[in-house]
Amino acid sequence: MAGTDRTQAPTLGGPRVVLIEPQLSENVGAVARAMLNCGLDRMSLVNPREGWPNSKAYAMASGATEVLEAAQVFATVEEAVADVSVLYATTARPRELTVRVLTPREAAADMRAVQARGEKVGVLFGPERSGMTNDHIALADTVISVPLNPAYSSLNLAQAVLLVAYEWFTAADETPADTLSMSGTRLAEKQELIGLFDRLETELDDGGFFRAPDLRPTIMRNLQSMLQRGRLTEQEVRTFHGMISALTRSWQHTQNAKRRRELEGDKSAD
Amino acid sequence: MAGTDRTQAPTLGGPRVVLIEPQLSENVGAVARAMLNCGLDRMSLVNPREGWPNSKAYAMASGATEVLEAAQVFATVEEAVADVSVLYATTARPRELTVRVLTPREAAADMRAVQARGEKVGVLFGPERSGMTNDHIALADTVISVPLNPAYSSLNLAQAVLLVAYEWFTAADETPADTLSMSGTRLAEKQELIGLFDRLETELDDGGFFRAPDLRPTIMRNLQSMLQRGRLTEQEVRTFHGMISALTRSWQHTQNAKRRRELEGDKSAD
Repeated sequence: MAGTDRTQAPTLGGPRVVLIEPQLSENVGAVARAMLNCGLDRMSLVNPREGWPNSKAYAMASGATEVLEAAQVFATVEEAVADVSVLYATTARPRELTVRVLTPREAAADMRAVQARGEKVGVLFGPERSGMTNDHIALADTVISVPLNPAYSSLNLAQAVLLVAYEWFTAADETPADTLSMSGTRLAEKQELIGLFDRLETELDDGGFFRAPDLRPTIMRNLQSMLQRGRLTEQEVRTFHGMISALTRSWQHTQNAKRRRELEGDKSAD
Repeated sequence: MAGTDRTQAPTLGGPRVVLIEPQLSENVGAVARAMLNCGLDRMSLVNPREGWPNSKAYAMASGATEVLEAAQVFATVEEAVADVSVLYATTARPRELTVRVLTPREAAADMRAVQARGEKVGVLFGPERSGMTNDHIALADTVISVPLNPAYSSLNLAQAVLLVAYEWFTAADETPADTLSMSGTRLAEKQELIGLFDRLETELDDGGFFRAPDLRPTIMRNLQSMLQRGRLTEQEVRTFHGMISALTRSWQHTQNAKRRRELEGDKSAD
């Protein structure tokens, strides 16, 4: 799903993503990609195992290099979050600690409220294999835990970042949930549809479609309902008129041919 | 984020994920992992480029082998969706076609409504590089388009599947959005908190904390508010009592030591 439109102004900012001791640079690159898709561009790396910068991260970032270029590197988590006012830690299950736990969706609303007050937000992600320690969780104000299949919960690092970042993005996104995508046309107006239904009824009648006249209103209502469910565009109503013309011509053509054959038969029988 | 609990009954079923001509088997494995995290286990492969089954897919599935084992392989998209009643196509932007477009969240609600009627749901995902063709989109009833950063929209195949599957899962998930995770304790009751505040006020008074007596009610209300914001547990109230005891002992200890030194000073001055 590649739909980048470079003419669009980037939607950036948002919480700082703090990766604690990431083991593989490829994963750092995949995180950058996940982040930028959702308009996040601030990444901090705490003691990355393979050093920094690293070409393998760039190879996996699929063009999200601006996130990697701006990444800050720290020796400790404490230094990485020094200027953060509200810190979240992502983990599957907080153990032993008494801590507030939010879904990513609730956390997104929470973070946006914090940022609206002008306070800095950070989100901690633990190392790939070992995950978050209780020391890291204790440093955070709130835990984010992604609800997943209880019998199989195994997100990789970039997937965990993607879900948190996606909720951050969609929390303020105004894309209509349900739209009809059209190019160079518009929905048909009622008068256009009524005109189509009237013509269809006439042509069907001429073709002997209504064998039981008392069922005619019911049948027409059903056809009307079927065609309206499709939410026809003005262009499609015109196409439909064209189809009716072609089909009636086809019928006339067949009738004419039949009549011609009959006439020819009459002649040959003379 | 690994939180698999094998004792939990799996939450399975849901829409069939149809991958059209996936190029890399690693991606098929990553898709299986994304799916099972969100309780989806029905995968169909249309003409996978590297053949099927493939060990590289298993290596990337991180234990989600049951999805790969059950995967069905077809030669054409038409065969893969033959028994599907409502078909969705995921794409960044529908081109030219007039088609209904849903966000993943709206699509999840839509799919659950369809499945509740007992009808089969399928979701098409195009090949990694080329994406969905208009022929595939025309086969679908509805398009799913993920709202993303307009200046950088570049999900990989498994990420696109993850977001659709995650919305499917969360549409019926009942995890509370905001909870306090506690182990072996409970929230403190008001009587316990009031007892703590009363003792704190007494001890602070003894320590000369309230220098301006007229501000005492305000200061106590602020302290009360600060401590209540933390939503203390019963265990933490007891811990707090312990801290007060230790701090007052510490003060007494210091006072006693000071008095001892004074007495000793008096003696040595004799």
